[in-house]
Amino acid sequence: MKWSKALIPTLKETPAEAEAVSHKLMLRAGLIKKLIAGAYTYLPLGFKVLKNVENIVREEMDSAGAQELLMPAIQPPELWHKTGRYAQLGEDMIKYKDRSGREMVLGPTHEEVITDIAKSEIRSYRDMPKILYQIQTKFRDEARPRFGVVRSKEFIMKDAYSFDANEKGLNENYEKMYEAYHRIFSRCGLDFIAVKADSGIMGGSESAEFMVVTDAGEDIIAVCACGYASSLDPEQAKQQEGSYACPKCKNKNISLKRAIELGHVFKLGTKYTKALDALFLDKDGKEKPIIMGCYGIGINRIIATVIETHNDKDGIIWPMSIAPYKVIVMPLKINDEKVMQAAEKIYNELKKQGISCLLDDRDISAGVKFKDADLIGIPIQAVIGPNTIKEDKIEVKMRGKEDKEKIPLSAAIGYIKPLACG
Amino acid sequence: MKWSKALIPTLKETPAEAEAVSHKLMLRAGLIKKLIAGAYTYLPLGFKVLKNVENIVREEMDSAGAQELLMPAIQPPELWHKTGRYAQLGEDMIKYKDRSGREMVLGPTHEEVITDIAKSEIRSYRDMPKILYQIQTKFRDEARPRFGVVRSKEFIMKDAYSFDANEKGLNENYEKMYEAYHRIFSRCGLDFIAVKADSGIMGGSESAEFMVVTDAGEDIIAVCACGYASSLDPEQAKQQEGSYACPKCKNKNISLKRAIELGHVFKLGTKYTKALDALFLDKDGKEKPIIMGCYGIGINRIIATVIETHNDKDGIIWPMSIAPYKVIVMPLKINDEKVMQAAEKIYNELKKQGISCLLDDRDISAGVKFKDADLIGIPIQAVIGPNTIKEDKIEVKMRGKEDKEKIPLSAAIGYIKPLACG
Repeated sequence: MKWSKALIPTLKETPAEAEAVSHKLMLRAGLIKKLIAGAYTYLPLGFKVLKNVENIVREEMDSAGAQELLMPAIQPPELWHKTGRYAQLGEDMIKYKDRSGREMVLGPTHEEVITDIAKSEIRSYRDMPKILYQIQTKFRDEARPRFGVVRSKEFIMKDAYSFDANEKGLNENYEKMYEAYHRIFSRCGLDFIAVKADSGIMGGSESAEFMVVTDAGEDIIAVCACGYASSLDPEQAKQQEGSYACPKCKNKNISLKRAIELGHVFKLGTKYTKALDALFLDKDGKEKPIIMGCYGIGINRIIATVIETHNDKDGIIWPMSIAPYKVIVMPLKINDEKVMQAAEKIYNELKKQGISCLLDDRDISAGVKFKDADLIGIPIQAVIGPNTIKEDKIEVKMRGKEDKEKIPLSAAIGYIKPLACG
Repeated sequence: MKWSKALIPTLKETPAEAEAVSHKLMLRAGLIKKLIAGAYTYLPLGFKVLKNVENIVREEMDSAGAQELLMPAIQPPELWHKTGRYAQLGEDMIKYKDRSGREMVLGPTHEEVITDIAKSEIRSYRDMPKILYQIQTKFRDEARPRFGVVRSKEFIMKDAYSFDANEKGLNENYEKMYEAYHRIFSRCGLDFIAVKADSGIMGGSESAEFMVVTDAGEDIIAVCACGYASSLDPEQAKQQEGSYACPKCKNKNISLKRAIELGHVFKLGTKYTKALDALFLDKDGKEKPIIMGCYGIGINRIIATVIETHNDKDGIIWPMSIAPYKVIVMPLKINDEKVMQAAEKIYNELKKQGISCLLDDRDISAGVKFKDADLIGIPIQAVIGPNTIKEDKIEVKMRGKEDKEKIPLSAAIGYIKPLACG
């Protein structure tokens, strides 16, 4: 893509509305644009990151044997009444009356709908184990939307659901998802902690949260050097600060940290299948409720968390795996013929080799180009300046590192490609 | 994928709810499942087709220079009041009151939101031409949802919007989109007619609909051998049947045909930009309203229309380009060791070569396997029977054709690959 043709509206000033670093940088780097409080447009650069994260999640779900489907956002309230969650969710759930006066709800999650599907399609122990998932837009009428896409009224989740005939099967599927989550967060460049958690409104016997330590975090977790980690409610945390002993190793040197929950895995058991009558015929000829697990990841939150943990005073530093482009080619003077020829040559060759690449062909000062490149955080900066090009050289710099390398123009692709493809 | 692990719930009987052939076959082949009238889940097989269509649309949009973004479904009604469409859409638009009592709407389309984005991000003639698009879920409170995913309350659209400083630019972008639509529909295996159309509620000066002739069509078009095509309202059509003269060649042998509109391209002009004050600074130093075009494609409708035009009495006949799998490997007797070994060998080799493949490893009769394979319509059927495998041969049949070819097992991949990869 050529920047002169692209829609990448970078901002010099930080919009007043933003508190969290990720929110500020997503606005400033032209990744998102606010429509109303809690609903944002992903502009082209942000959309590319979104797709990259989605693809990592999809690859890991597929390779864990999960099957992708897509459920509606519009849902009948009857299913929610049956599980008791209509009342539990209260004003958090968006409801409307359709033209015939019938109430409908917009799904904040899909346990009810997927259980309704399982009820008719999973009838025998032979139909299990199964894991079904979707990457889909969910709705929640947040009382206090904040931190940009972190806590919004409309958000993209990967939600997976496992179905088993017995506890052993559930444990195996839970383990598979747990491992897939490790791979997903690692590939996105995130250092995470898996924390035993309260199952809350979801119900079920066991659950774990995948948390990343960051100052913009909404949760407080207790972390011990022995490996113990647990989430706390803020009141509990305040009371125990300083005197909180690790329940595992009994030492009092546990520390409390802020942490933007990214994912949650739950052993749901039979809560939903009992409520919605999703039964299967077991080996022994008896009808039993299907045993479920559910596994969520906030796609938007991954993006915000990566930015929270990968930035410096100048802007974002994308990990290669989810960067909107791997390389930014920066001709510092576009009316210098030699500069522009070299830049276009590198740009075209990278594109030909399948390496995503942004060419900053705007007729602006070198200073602004450097500032914008640092702000949007493309990992590899290939700088073509009027002086270095006289020696037939370009400069390559990794975003977030100080060193620059002078590379002969003829060796540029050979130097950049391994950096981009890891 | 192994069918024994997959969720592909084929049905012998046609559900009573379905009228159109595509609706019947989508339910029977386990592509979709109804949640409520007008809202369907895409089950894994249907979801694969959906992704294939999306990818074709995305490739053609990108190659036409359009940039992808993603706008919210939740929209503020104020924008719709300003363009006058709040009143025009009436009960078709889904509205709700949020927890603070403020009214919100769910977007049935995004002209208002994209114009609001253009207003702040496109300020100079230098920022144009631009085409922005999204593939996104839209909401419309259909009075009579029908034909499955064809007329539903929740549907996936590709909506693109062009922005230009003058009419010449608009014409060029309109032409680009028009050509991209040709390529998209052709790649999906659809014979379409581009029909000059009424711009209706969208406004603007010129528009064309992309229609496919099918008995399940909701529209009536007049088609003449001279190349003229036009859409008619049903009343108009009834009056003129038999005596309708072609406005182009004046002959009276024009024929009326039913046709499930798939796409629509509009020259909007300045209707939205004037209403929402989206102005740019032109070369001459004057502020002018941006000139827009909009270009929609119903992703779900493409799928239904392909089925309407690609089926026989036994089921769907997918074009290779959007088939959920390219090959179905059918071991007719799974407890015959030689049969199963050969089937797994072909299956694994195809997967290794990147050719999507379904292995029907279910312990059921050969008759049901043939029936199900014909129903779900995978283009290439690789049949491994206990008799042919004794001669170290398999049978390969293209869905929808009568001929079978006996192929030596050792040559199977070499025979199938060119069929699958075109």
